[in-house]
Amino acid sequence: MRALVYHGPEDIRCDTLPDPSPPDVDGAVIRIERAAICGSDLHLYHGHMSSETGYGVGHEAIGEIVEVGSGVRRFRSGDRVLVSGVVGCAECGPCRTGNVAACETAPAMVFGVNQGLPGGQAEALAVPKADANLCAIPEGITAEQAVLLTDILPTGYFGAVGAEIQPGQDVAVIGCGPVGLMAILAAGLFSPARIFALDSVAERLAAAAGLGAIPVDVSADPLGQQLLDATGGLGPHAVIEAVGADASIQAAIGHVRRGGIVSVVGVNVRLDFPFPMALALMKNITFRIGICPIPLFWAPLLPLVREGRLAPDFVFTHRMGLSEGAEAYHLFAQRRDGVLKVLLDPAS
Amino acid sequence: MRALVYHGPEDIRCDTLPDPSPPDVDGAVIRIERAAICGSDLHLYHGHMSSETGYGVGHEAIGEIVEVGSGVRRFRSGDRVLVSGVVGCAECGPCRTGNVAACETAPAMVFGVNQGLPGGQAEALAVPKADANLCAIPEGITAEQAVLLTDILPTGYFGAVGAEIQPGQDVAVIGCGPVGLMAILAAGLFSPARIFALDSVAERLAAAAGLGAIPVDVSADPLGQQLLDATGGLGPHAVIEAVGADASIQAAIGHVRRGGIVSVVGVNVRLDFPFPMALALMKNITFRIGICPIPLFWAPLLPLVREGRLAPDFVFTHRMGLSEGAEAYHLFAQRRDGVLKVLLDPAS
Amino acid sequence: MRALVYHGPEDIRCDTLPDPSPPDVDGAVIRIERAAICGSDLHLYHGHMSSETGYGVGHEAIGEIVEVGSGVRRFRSGDRVLVSGVVGCAECGPCRTGNVAACETAPAMVFGVNQGLPGGQAEALAVPKADANLCAIPEGITAEQAVLLTDILPTGYFGAVGAEIQPGQDVAVIGCGPVGLMAILAAGLFSPARIFALDSVAERLAAAAGLGAIPVDVSADPLGQQLLDATGGLGPHAVIEAVGADASIQAAIGHVRRGGIVSVVGVNVRLDFPFPMALALMKNITFRIGICPIPLFWAPLLPLVREGRLAPDFVFTHRMGLSEGAEAYHLFAQRRDGVLKVLLDPAS
Amino acid sequence: MRALVYHGPEDIRCDTLPDPSPPDVDGAVIRIERAAICGSDLHLYHGHMSSETGYGVGHEAIGEIVEVGSGVRRFRSGDRVLVSGVVGCAECGPCRTGNVAACETAPAMVFGVNQGLPGGQAEALAVPKADANLCAIPEGITAEQAVLLTDILPTGYFGAVGAEIQPGQDVAVIGCGPVGLMAILAAGLFSPARIFALDSVAERLAAAAGLGAIPVDVSADPLGQQLLDATGGLGPHAVIEAVGADASIQAAIGHVRRGGIVSVVGVNVRLDFPFPMALALMKNITFRIGICPIPLFWAPLLPLVREGRLAPDFVFTHRMGLSEGAEAYHLFAQRRDGVLKVLLDPAS
Repeated sequence: MRALVYHGPEDIRCDTLPDPSPPDVDGAVIRIERAAICGSDLHLYHGHMSSETGYGVGHEAIGEIVEVGSGVRRFRSGDRVLVSGVVGCAECGPCRTGNVAACETAPAMVFGVNQGLPGGQAEALAVPKADANLCAIPEGITAEQAVLLTDILPTGYFGAVGAEIQPGQDVAVIGCGPVGLMAILAAGLFSPARIFALDSVAERLAAAAGLGAIPVDVSADPLGQQLLDATGGLGPHAVIEAVGADASIQAAIGHVRRGGIVSVVGVNVRLDFPFPMALALMKNITFRIGICPIPLFWAPLLPLVREGRLAPDFVFTHRMGLSEGAEAYHLFAQRRDGVLKVLLDPAS
Repeated sequence: MRALVYHGPEDIRCDTLPDPSPPDVDGAVIRIERAAICGSDLHLYHGHMSSETGYGVGHEAIGEIVEVGSGVRRFRSGDRVLVSGVVGCAECGPCRTGNVAACETAPAMVFGVNQGLPGGQAEALAVPKADANLCAIPEGITAEQAVLLTDILPTGYFGAVGAEIQPGQDVAVIGCGPVGLMAILAAGLFSPARIFALDSVAERLAAAAGLGAIPVDVSADPLGQQLLDATGGLGPHAVIEAVGADASIQAAIGHVRRGGIVSVVGVNVRLDFPFPMALALMKNITFRIGICPIPLFWAPLLPLVREGRLAPDFVFTHRMGLSEGAEAYHLFAQRRDGVLKVLLDPAS
Repeated sequence: MRALVYHGPEDIRCDTLPDPSPPDVDGAVIRIERAAICGSDLHLYHGHMSSETGYGVGHEAIGEIVEVGSGVRRFRSGDRVLVSGVVGCAECGPCRTGNVAACETAPAMVFGVNQGLPGGQAEALAVPKADANLCAIPEGITAEQAVLLTDILPTGYFGAVGAEIQPGQDVAVIGCGPVGLMAILAAGLFSPARIFALDSVAERLAAAAGLGAIPVDVSADPLGQQLLDATGGLGPHAVIEAVGADASIQAAIGHVRRGGIVSVVGVNVRLDFPFPMALALMKNITFRIGICPIPLFWAPLLPLVREGRLAPDFVFTHRMGLSEGAEAYHLFAQRRDGVLKVLLDPAS
Repeated sequence: MRALVYHGPEDIRCDTLPDPSPPDVDGAVIRIERAAICGSDLHLYHGHMSSETGYGVGHEAIGEIVEVGSGVRRFRSGDRVLVSGVVGCAECGPCRTGNVAACETAPAMVFGVNQGLPGGQAEALAVPKADANLCAIPEGITAEQAVLLTDILPTGYFGAVGAEIQPGQDVAVIGCGPVGLMAILAAGLFSPARIFALDSVAERLAAAAGLGAIPVDVSADPLGQQLLDATGGLGPHAVIEAVGADASIQAAIGHVRRGGIVSVVGVNVRLDFPFPMALALMKNITFRIGICPIPLFWAPLLPLVREGRLAPDFVFTHRMGLSEGAEAYHLFAQRRDGVLKVLLDPAS
């Protein structure tokens, strides 16, 4: 089958990989209908994650089940499903509730990052533990919305849940890339009075403003004075960080008000991150960071998308064929052409 | 009046300071009945907090009101009260609920650390905003128990609340000094299956074991293997850190299980604390640190002490006179004679 | 001063009452700018609440402080304020947080129902415990919005809070009168997938639909079959009851799904309400009913109204002068002219 | 096999029933090691539940798996297990978390009440959906403790959870039969300052006092004056009702303080229970009643029993053979010989 394959830094190409083997007793094989490139794929693209090459990439995919193991109970061939980008053991207590990030067997795994799971930017995908890791796509949800439910919409929601937003509070979201925009959408579900959206890229700030957020251009206001001015000097009750850079995580701790919450969905892999502990201590801060347990959030999000209360698909600015995968990665990595997120069609 | 006064590093003496002025309209003056030395007083004692000298120290005191401002509604002269070691503005939303650490006017202030509030290791103390910062000592609570309600018992409880312990979970408490022991007591209120108590001092581990905790000698088991072995390799659901050292906060993050909570009541004032962010990210951690909003926790704690469900006063190993203050500080700083905590009597 | 006065069943008139006395030390006198008639005033209007006559009525009023007691800290003459329709002792633990309905001194009291508090449908009003019972009207909130914050918007919110709505759930609101409409608005803050609005009056159903709810005409569907059909036979996760009739409270228990919540903001004063306990038992129901602790909800609601996230003032269909009070009550009681709610101007 | 069989009102006998059929693909057959008689079995015993006869009774049983369906993943033959007395579909969202009482497929079912499930007071028992309805008995838990985990300890815990007890609050438990005593034990896990135990039977009050509760003899104090006197006239924050009688549920509503919670684990099947709605309205009450979703509570309870933090087995006052079943029911129904709860041994 055709699949996007990692060949080294800045070198991902549409290539041929073996078709998936028949699924084991609990697994399923999906014919991919649509896939997408995630911001976290860029870590891999830039060569930060593995020195090996030759493996399939991508963890955002939806499609139709074409083969299913005999032990799968909730799905059958022909079902149209979305795949959790992050998977757990499916059997332990947390996994049975969908909280795969607290799996008691092993750290949660991600498709397409050479941890043993294949990539989803391909024509087909083998999914282990199908009952736990697949979700039927209900009537009223489009393919593009379904792709967003495989990772970044749940991830944005995870950030908003971690921020414990109460109605009428003020929230800031740092970073208005695809995940940050999903975090803005999701934060709105908890009815803050205001969402401040921080970024320095005009298109991203404009997209945030289009969601009802108050754009804050951090290139013009690096210290967040606008946040203080708007909140009587207190800062927002919660800050969702969706970049992962050292400076922006530190800014989140700096901006939040006393007693507030910082909820990080950006990826930061420092082992000695310079944490302003004295500030956190004086401010009584709750700080969260983690991998989104995606299946945990399908129950709230699916009906909201289905009923039109959440409309995340604006984020797809580019639709390309799998054969254009190399170009798609280049475009996305270079933030060309106002790109927010790229959808891939395995059929072309 | 006599009072303990800071004269420089390792030099706190019983000295004479002016009597408190008459209280302003919202204030009260207390004749101190008992006071205590807190572990956090040692930061000051060792010269880490201020280059100035000559001010009164101490923030744990109880006594009788001898003068009261005309605007005070809830107290009158003669009332026996305990004083919150930490005070807020008393008027903003959080302060009106007792959450002085989220004060919207200014950071919470502590008595006796040269922030503008006098010290409580003295014969008398002027307390601002008496309605908010004092608490009547009810029948059935002893003077020694009341002193513990001014700071360290609420602080231990704050750590336990922050750990969000659910019945049947496993918890670790790092550090079995006075605050750590209070955290063990308080954690027990939330009915964990097991409390692991980590320290390297035999007396402290023995005190923790006396509270029903499982002692873990970190000098023999620096990596916390015992925690992993006891929990099927998962680690405890929550860790309360009551030391404040870099290594012990890092250990807390290392020990806690995926999806767990680290609740820090130790004091760490690094501006670039080396935080293992990659680990926190992979484990989906909630991390909390802060100053205890003491008045917030009187409502739950007072009845529990009164009914004998909490018996914190075992922690007083030494009872000395105010005139012995210099010796009391030496003894406590050097951890001599199995000292856990020193009670001071201003009358002698 | 002029005021609406109860003269017996169906007989409320604009009359002359003595001006308010000067406030006591904690009180304030307000010159009323706008007042409104509440659905609960109709209980009194119909003679169900008191056999006495001659007292002022109304508990929804805003205005300007014209006189203030010396002990009031948070307000001064000239401040524009809204008045909580329900007041507590202001001193006990719950009251200090705004939870006047859990007052430890006495049941919460309501203005204008002959419990010792004067009526707010008047030119002026004496308010006890001004610090607790008044709220400054911030910039950006109109007089009409402020009137709604004195009672029915917080009451609708109270119903929604009691329903513990989680994002993506389904909710039903029984009764689309003014309080029911506020409950629909407030329920929306918690992002249910769908709000089903049940009533039998076309105008009210239309108003509910205008808020994004799905109208259910109970005259055509008395058993709520539409709710079952839409929810796979399960019923909504929560039901907010805003009528208070026996049948509609029973219907709420009947409609809600297993494990669900019924939150009643309608008024029912039966001492032997026929409660379908067997059904509640089989369904594991949480049932709530109560008086709204209005000041508790100003913190979340004010910023949401100020920022335009809540627009409740559509509910005022009629604006009349105080001198037209008798007619205003008739009109409202008879539900004439598509009336939803009547605003009163004391100046005319 | 031998089994206790319902032959009509007050006529349960040890009889012969067919051995369980081999389990279906998801099921298991258990050889019963111990069973027990539950208070709710008396409804059946007295003829209140079914006009049919000839079926096996009992829903509290533990034993060893002797046969297991091919689709069962978590258990194998030889495993020692306890059986949930209440079972759900095992597949829907709530059931997968253990919340069988919110099953989206059908109302939860109970063994041994002629709903299609066999009885557990027998030599063997067929259990459907073994993965969901069985729980391995860990090291350190005795057979008698395990029997209590099949129903009444989780049920008491369910009542305590529903009461949302906060540390330092006051709680009342109405009814000190086996479930009430388990509720007292469980309430203690949430660290109330005081638990008031209401009953009129001296032995039951003594058992409650033995658990640290304050006994209140309702025959001497029918109006609960002692509760008011002890709580400054406010009443307890929460009341757990463990009788199910009309008068005691009404008393629970009467006793609880304003803003409080009534959590009913007693069984009341009135369709027109006379509910004091006016009182509930004035007091802002949360009222809960339901069937315990037993598997939901194994996670917290098992480690607490294993570590000795919960010691429920004192409740077994009588140990008898299955062949003495008729006598066991008589004894329990008549509350003879100070009986609290009867354990049955199928081997004799």
